[in-house]
Amino acid sequence: MNITIIGLGLIGGSMALDFKHMGHRVLGVDANPFHQREAMDLGLVEQCLPLDQAVAQSDVVVVAVPVGATPAVIKEALQHLPANGVIFDVGSTKKSICKALEGHPRRERFVAAHPIAGTEYSGPSAAHSGLFYRKLGIICDREKSAPDAVDCVEDLFVQLGMELKRIDSDEHDKHLAYVSHISHLSSFTLGLTVLDIEKDERSIFDMAGSGFASTVRLAKSSPEMWAPIMLENSEHLLEALDSYIDNLNKFKERILNRDEEGLKELMREANRIRGVLEKRS
Amino acid sequence: MNITIIGLGLIGGSMALDFKHMGHRVLGVDANPFHQREAMDLGLVEQCLPLDQAVAQSDVVVVAVPVGATPAVIKEALQHLPANGVIFDVGSTKKSICKALEGHPRRERFVAAHPIAGTEYSGPSAAHSGLFYRKLGIICDREKSAPDAVDCVEDLFVQLGMELKRIDSDEHDKHLAYVSHISHLSSFTLGLTVLDIEKDERSIFDMAGSGFASTVRLAKSSPEMWAPIMLENSEHLLEALDSYIDNLNKFKERILNRDEEGLKELMREANRIRGVLEKRS
Repeated sequence: MNITIIGLGLIGGSMALDFKHMGHRVLGVDANPFHQREAMDLGLVEQCLPLDQAVAQSDVVVVAVPVGATPAVIKEALQHLPANGVIFDVGSTKKSICKALEGHPRRERFVAAHPIAGTEYSGPSAAHSGLFYRKLGIICDREKSAPDAVDCVEDLFVQLGMELKRIDSDEHDKHLAYVSHISHLSSFTLGLTVLDIEKDERSIFDMAGSGFASTVRLAKSSPEMWAPIMLENSEHLLEALDSYIDNLNKFKERILNRDEEGLKELMREANRIRGVLEKRS
Repeated sequence: MNITIIGLGLIGGSMALDFKHMGHRVLGVDANPFHQREAMDLGLVEQCLPLDQAVAQSDVVVVAVPVGATPAVIKEALQHLPANGVIFDVGSTKKSICKALEGHPRRERFVAAHPIAGTEYSGPSAAHSGLFYRKLGIICDREKSAPDAVDCVEDLFVQLGMELKRIDSDEHDKHLAYVSHISHLSSFTLGLTVLDIEKDERSIFDMAGSGFASTVRLAKSSPEMWAPIMLENSEHLLEALDSYIDNLNKFKERILNRDEEGLKELMREANRIRGVLEKRS
């Protein structure tokens, strides 16, 4: 198959590599000429072309740009897509993208997707083969897409090694607010807080243990990618954030009251996350 | 040397193992008979004895119990310690422990120490050899201890593979509030928040990516260990927590105002943590 990847970052670039290894012909589209060059140098894609030219000769188009730009890119790609072509996106929010495409005459050639995979690094150089292996591939609102388009995307996801999950786009955004977006927010905030106070960076460098490194890891994530996600999913995220702040205040109150038993109780409740995480691995 | 480890958890047990491998005779003390039995079964210590009997025959005593209990245990151990014996602790807070021992007639046989090492697991079964290798070994208020006692602890830390850092106990607590204690608090809070909302644990299990696992990892930490740390270091921790909540509110405000550029700006600031973390590794 001919596959076009629009957006040659961590996700798009990693998918390009895996598709190439499967024997597909992979074309690249990226607004950033430096990323185009890098993707070519790294062998992620066979050729970089303008969007219309690449899409017009493709069976499958992957839109892997920041979520705020995704609907416009999908609409542009739908204009040039061959009759039986399929477009899917990979964004971390799904509801606003699906809403933007509601009633589009070619809506059924689009499949709203989200492979739950990634790292805190970004750009073509962060791409690597196998990123999607044993990860979850979410397909949203599949009844809005043509059955052959859904089958095509699900087949590709299975070939990438993903387990499939089908869910409504609003449900998706709600869950992701809790299991991903608020994690990023708490980690960005931790980074910011520690940098604010620890003017002497040497002390952080010196005294931070592996626990800090793990908790703050996501603070390295791309602002270009994450600011739009937080705005697109603001409704659910603000709900999660309020609940997070409430819980912080519970800790604060118990520390102020020197309520050791109360603190332990909150921590024991939080410990239940163990069972959840262990089921995952 | 004869070395007694009081508190056979992750830190005490791991130190016991390494000391045993160095050829020292290691005795164990633990208030919990189940932990005593486990430590014996795992070969962490040669023998478990009551505190007075173990300490009376020791050159070095390690106090590795929760920080709230540490001063009383040190004082009890100082009563039975041979004339030239040395006691050190390994707690995550240092100021209140040093303060509790101020003016003690045998204060100079005690060295306030903190090896920056650990995992989110606890108890004798979490102990493992090499935990301290290439970690930081902090010694606080060394002028309060006899030079030979400091030398003894520093030598042992170097033999465990640690790099030494000497710092004032109040400075220690202030830095640790930022680079460790607030990380734990944010992670416990994340665990709590997600568990609160995601009543259907299957969704967390399904949809959480590796980013969530990393950010929430410390929520698995021991309440018995962490509640006392948060109370002992409440002054600095509350300052860190207020600043953390302020920063969360900055994010919230910018999300509410749909201020994409402002969000990116905060994230870019947080990204500076990259430089700090990379220097570490």
